[in-house]
Amino acid sequence: MSVQQYIQDHQDRFLQELFELLRIPSVSADSNFQPEVFYAAAFVKKSLENAGADKVEVCETEGFPVVYGEKIIDPAAPTVLVYGHYDVQPADPYALWESPPFEPQVKKTAAHPEGAVFARGAADDKGQFFMHIKAFEALVRQKELPCNVKFMIEGEEEVGSSHLEPFVKQYREKLKADAVLISDTSMISLENPSITVGLRGLAYMEVEVTGPNKDLHSGTFGGAVANPINILCRMIASLQDKDNRITIPGFYDKVEILSDSYRELLNKAPFDESQFKQKLDIAETSGEAGYTTIERTGIRPTLDVNGIWGGYTGLGAKTVLPSKAYAKISMRLVPNQDFNEISALFEKHLKAIAPASVKVKVTTHHGGHPAVISTDSKAYRAAEAAVLEVFGKKAIPTREGGSIPITSLFQKELGVDPILLGFGLDTDAIHSPNEHFGLKNFYMGINTIASFYKHFQKQWINHE
Amino acid sequence: MSVQQYIQDHQDRFLQELFELLRIPSVSADSNFQPEVFYAAAFVKKSLENAGADKVEVCETEGFPVVYGEKIIDPAAPTVLVYGHYDVQPADPYALWESPPFEPQVKKTAAHPEGAVFARGAADDKGQFFMHIKAFEALVRQKELPCNVKFMIEGEEEVGSSHLEPFVKQYREKLKADAVLISDTSMISLENPSITVGLRGLAYMEVEVTGPNKDLHSGTFGGAVANPINILCRMIASLQDKDNRITIPGFYDKVEILSDSYRELLNKAPFDESQFKQKLDIAETSGEAGYTTIERTGIRPTLDVNGIWGGYTGLGAKTVLPSKAYAKISMRLVPNQDFNEISALFEKHLKAIAPASVKVKVTTHHGGHPAVISTDSKAYRAAEAAVLEVFGKKAIPTREGGSIPITSLFQKELGVDPILLGFGLDTDAIHSPNEHFGLKNFYMGINTIASFYKHFQKQWINHE
Repeated sequence: MSVQQYIQDHQDRFLQELFELLRIPSVSADSNFQPEVFYAAAFVKKSLENAGADKVEVCETEGFPVVYGEKIIDPAAPTVLVYGHYDVQPADPYALWESPPFEPQVKKTAAHPEGAVFARGAADDKGQFFMHIKAFEALVRQKELPCNVKFMIEGEEEVGSSHLEPFVKQYREKLKADAVLISDTSMISLENPSITVGLRGLAYMEVEVTGPNKDLHSGTFGGAVANPINILCRMIASLQDKDNRITIPGFYDKVEILSDSYRELLNKAPFDESQFKQKLDIAETSGEAGYTTIERTGIRPTLDVNGIWGGYTGLGAKTVLPSKAYAKISMRLVPNQDFNEISALFEKHLKAIAPASVKVKVTTHHGGHPAVISTDSKAYRAAEAAVLEVFGKKAIPTREGGSIPITSLFQKELGVDPILLGFGLDTDAIHSPNEHFGLKNFYMGINTIASFYKHFQKQWINHE
Repeated sequence: MSVQQYIQDHQDRFLQELFELLRIPSVSADSNFQPEVFYAAAFVKKSLENAGADKVEVCETEGFPVVYGEKIIDPAAPTVLVYGHYDVQPADPYALWESPPFEPQVKKTAAHPEGAVFARGAADDKGQFFMHIKAFEALVRQKELPCNVKFMIEGEEEVGSSHLEPFVKQYREKLKADAVLISDTSMISLENPSITVGLRGLAYMEVEVTGPNKDLHSGTFGGAVANPINILCRMIASLQDKDNRITIPGFYDKVEILSDSYRELLNKAPFDESQFKQKLDIAETSGEAGYTTIERTGIRPTLDVNGIWGGYTGLGAKTVLPSKAYAKISMRLVPNQDFNEISALFEKHLKAIAPASVKVKVTTHHGGHPAVISTDSKAYRAAEAAVLEVFGKKAIPTREGGSIPITSLFQKELGVDPILLGFGLDTDAIHSPNEHFGLKNFYMGINTIASFYKHFQKQWINHE
């Protein structure tokens, strides 16, 4: 029986196992879910053991643990390190979910006529790293695993992977690999498969503006005492100019300037702006002047308010002049911006523009450096060959807007460019209510990953 | 026994009765408290009956009822209409209350060394209208009531008194009076008693900005799709210029221009700016250029964001580009601004400045016209005489920043300038956590109100 046949024969069980994993609300950002995050780690350990991995262990960190497992078939064979994360984004607002976020269901959508699994984490990243465990299982059971494999599945990706750097440094030898595989990104479509070769970095900040030391009556005090919400709005508004360029001094200093020919190539990726607008029900796209939508999300840095709150937010009206106002603000970064530098510039600027009538506190939540992946490597060529074999088309190299902080860490600490072989779609609503992951994407993904090992081993032999 | 003696002898019972009233969480803005608001109306009915009022009834409106009661001693005697409201502001944020908002307690403060009642509604307005019921009781029991009295205590003041206009129009004959007394404002201090002769109006709006039709991942879409929070901040910021003047076209067109001599007089009221800043723990006051703090809160219109929310506001970080952002924005109005006109100008302007990348919805919560009270009336002179008798000082006429929509309604429908004889202090934290009302203010208020009737009857006889 072939590996493909094994995958097909066991596809229902694979899906039921994924459902079990998706039922665990492993929300790393919210301490109320702490036990569930640990439980998800234990579940991953069990899954790796069942699939045939050796030396599986739940490695403690100062935060949530990293699950490690390996299968060394031959010290001379090439080694692939698989990275994924078992934590998920918060599911709120719960009210907007059509089915409960932690009770997975299969439903059909326009983009997934053959059905998709709806659940928080379905695409980001449980459904995607689970493909690796199942591809591995198929190769082991069919005795066709051609490479050594190491798994490293962490639990803090959605809160910035802050304990991963010391972990990777400590276990540099143990994690040593010739290729790193990550499925935590999306592809253009099943008809236009793509491999992500660029990721933006992130600097995530929180701002607290304090006006008077207590909430005041806006009638009695309004007009004479600075309102921290009005001030916060002014400060936020001033962070971008009329061309939507970010006004923080020094912000663009290190931004990589790409050649016209590279930009031309980038804009050749299939993209339908009118369909894009229609799907989001917006009359116009909006962003930095002089750049296309593909460029705005791929190669240019941004500044978005991810959350804002202050004063009375209940029903009806309350005439309060509040004491405090808050915002969560994140900036997506591009090569060669440094998230520590950008975080510092942000804080300095916010304090500089704050009027004397308020106090401003700035906190850094987390960040990650941007990354660019070489397309000139054995691993990239193996990924291209695997995509061609399963999808029948050559993968388009794309730059994605999101951030995976681990990417630049692998580059720096292990000296390897990770291959970002993601199988989600942009319409899968990751980080949103009704997140889902296509069944076809799931099964084609498992096949592509299995195929990758075969091609990587070939590339390795041919070029050694 | 004198009326003063009666008040003193019964002061403990008066306080216990007020406590009972304060224990009812009659929050009109929040429909969860609807039964309690009706219960408060029933409590007021009972209190009026016990105090000696006749024909007491709970008059239904399309919203919360108005409690009416009267005592007609002589058709030839002058008639005083007392207005108050039994509804209260929402108590949240509950966490900031030092004692539960609906469990009244007496505690000492710097401004109230003899103690103050801490509870939601203590000063606004339960503690204040209750003084009228108790002064009335004392006069009735001592057989010294010199005027006819009518009570009209409503339950929708904190949500804009929207059903009061039809009520007053319907019962214009029944409510007919020679003076209207309202205690729902503050005085400068017990040492510097004052009577409010100006109130600002109010236009309270809610704005909803919609970007994409669902929450998006800010990495994947950020930079290319308008973020409704960023846009809302920009729109709010643009509503005021660098001099803190409001930029809505036509906003200032009808603002009364006061003479230099009037402004000079206004600024003579005792006010210590450095103490004001110290109490609020602010380094600087802030407001419209060219005006003092007294002018900014008394004679100039304002625009305050009372609440803002959107995106992720929980713990930690969520990289969401939200679908919607909201703000509650109120404008305080001065003579001769019209709140309907201003609400319409606001809505028109917000829609005009919204970029095509978002949709904007504007709702009017409620409003009230500004009011100016003549100091040249029998009722005002009677109030001055009563204050002089009880406080030993002539009352300073002041303009207050808050709004009591009913004021202009009485002027228009009953042809009477209400007397705004309030006994709270600006430090009483109305609309804030830890609202309180001084015991001394409460008892001196009851005595002043009782004294008012005597002086009003004298004025009436002397000038008829």
